[in-house]
Amino acid sequence: MQNNRKIDICLAPSMMNLFDLSNKQIVIIDVFRATSAMCVFLNNGGLEVIPVSTVEEAEAYKAKNISAKKLKYLVAAERNGKVVSGFDLGNSPLMYTRKEFNGLSLVITTTNGTNAIEKSKNHYGNMILASFLNATAVINYINNLENNDVLIVCSGWKGRFCVEDLLLAGLISSNLISNYKFHSDSDSVLLANNMYQISKKNMFDFLVQSSYMQRMKLNQDVKYCLQKDIMDIVPVWSCSNHEKKGYGSFTI
Amino acid sequence: MQNNRKIDICLAPSMMNLFDLSNKQIVIIDVFRATSAMCVFLNNGGLEVIPVSTVEEAEAYKAKNISAKKLKYLVAAERNGKVVSGFDLGNSPLMYTRKEFNGLSLVITTTNGTNAIEKSKNHYGNMILASFLNATAVINYINNLENNDVLIVCSGWKGRFCVEDLLLAGLISSNLISNYKFHSDSDSVLLANNMYQISKKNMFDFLVQSSYMQRMKLNQDVKYCLQKDIMDIVPVWSCSNHEKKGYGSFTI
Repeated sequence: MQNNRKIDICLAPSMMNLFDLSNKQIVIIDVFRATSAMCVFLNNGGLEVIPVSTVEEAEAYKAKNISAKKLKYLVAAERNGKVVSGFDLGNSPLMYTRKEFNGLSLVITTTNGTNAIEKSKNHYGNMILASFLNATAVINYINNLENNDVLIVCSGWKGRFCVEDLLLAGLISSNLISNYKFHSDSDSVLLANNMYQISKKNMFDFLVQSSYMQRMKLNQDVKYCLQKDIMDIVPVWSCSNHEKKGYGSFTI
Repeated sequence: MQNNRKIDICLAPSMMNLFDLSNKQIVIIDVFRATSAMCVFLNNGGLEVIPVSTVEEAEAYKAKNISAKKLKYLVAAERNGKVVSGFDLGNSPLMYTRKEFNGLSLVITTTNGTNAIEKSKNHYGNMILASFLNATAVINYINNLENNDVLIVCSGWKGRFCVEDLLLAGLISSNLISNYKFHSDSDSVLLANNMYQISKKNMFDFLVQSSYMQRMKLNQDVKYCLQKDIMDIVPVWSCSNHEKKGYGSFTI
């Protein structure tokens, strides 16, 4: 029997205004590398991830550490694939693999991933982060919800479409359709499912032709981000524990 | 030797503001059905196609026929796949197959195709129409130009992505890359080429799952539009023969 829950995919943040976000379970994807890095941080004991839109907002959190005279916020900023000058951390998951982050909050701004979050968070609170690293945990989380249609949002690159985000969207949507009888009438889902099928046997080799790999030459990061199911966590958005309107964080 | 000319694909009109249109050869695609219908009209002797954005603009051309006391403009209007009330013609190519249109101009407004044209025409004048019906003619036309990078614009459905437009974009881009050494660093082109490869053996069967075929149930139109190379024409945009700013037409 068909599940009455529906899946759609927004191919890039520039198309988000075409979707009705109300009552949707929103799944944010930025495979290379924001959502992968955020998952790694939380899996290594981090308390929460606070996404911010601008470098200035990130700077303000650094000032909070100084005024509190203790390190509460790790602050990361990435633009165009590089750590922003004056910051120690960016969006490489490899920066978050070796540490125990117990009790620390990660404040992070990135070129694409935090932009997609920003566009989603003001519309609806039900939002999670997905990467290949936690893909099956995400699929199970979505399936265990009682209702809510699903909208997967691909972060892309500066508003445009990126193929790696589509492949993960295809993994998630094809699983929900095949195993849990979700349905879809969307050409984006048809596209994602087909692209995932033709690339899944050797995704690294397939992605060698991608814009990201051609541009960034970050093979170690790419290999890390393509590992499937190395953790069992799902970062879930909440804005209840933040005083300032529009702010919130992901916790597990 | 690699051609220094580049190809990119805009997946839907809602993403057009992310592309630099200057000095681009723009190729407009609306497989189901606007660009297919326009090609058929011109191939059957039509003088020109004048795309307009609104039904009101189309009405104004009907009034011109009356004041000139002769039929100069055929006027077509389609919204949501249907002929608009008060008009005799819409965007079905089957409406344009049986007649000789010598000397007549077709004024047409459609849900998606004329919207993509509208977004392109104010930026740059070098614009052509593509369909499966004239695909090889389009490829040869582009290759014979001396320079200009190519931007293929998929009209989609109400701003969103449609898979049939991507398949034709893939046919055109993969030909230009394989046979004429054009190059691309775009994930949209990677996507289009892969999707064309997996669907080309039986495109009708592949598209049975598409949003358009599920929604519209227009199998005869779909079959007609998927015929490859039944004509050898390329509709080219010009605004030199229209007094009013922003207006122009496609001729062959």
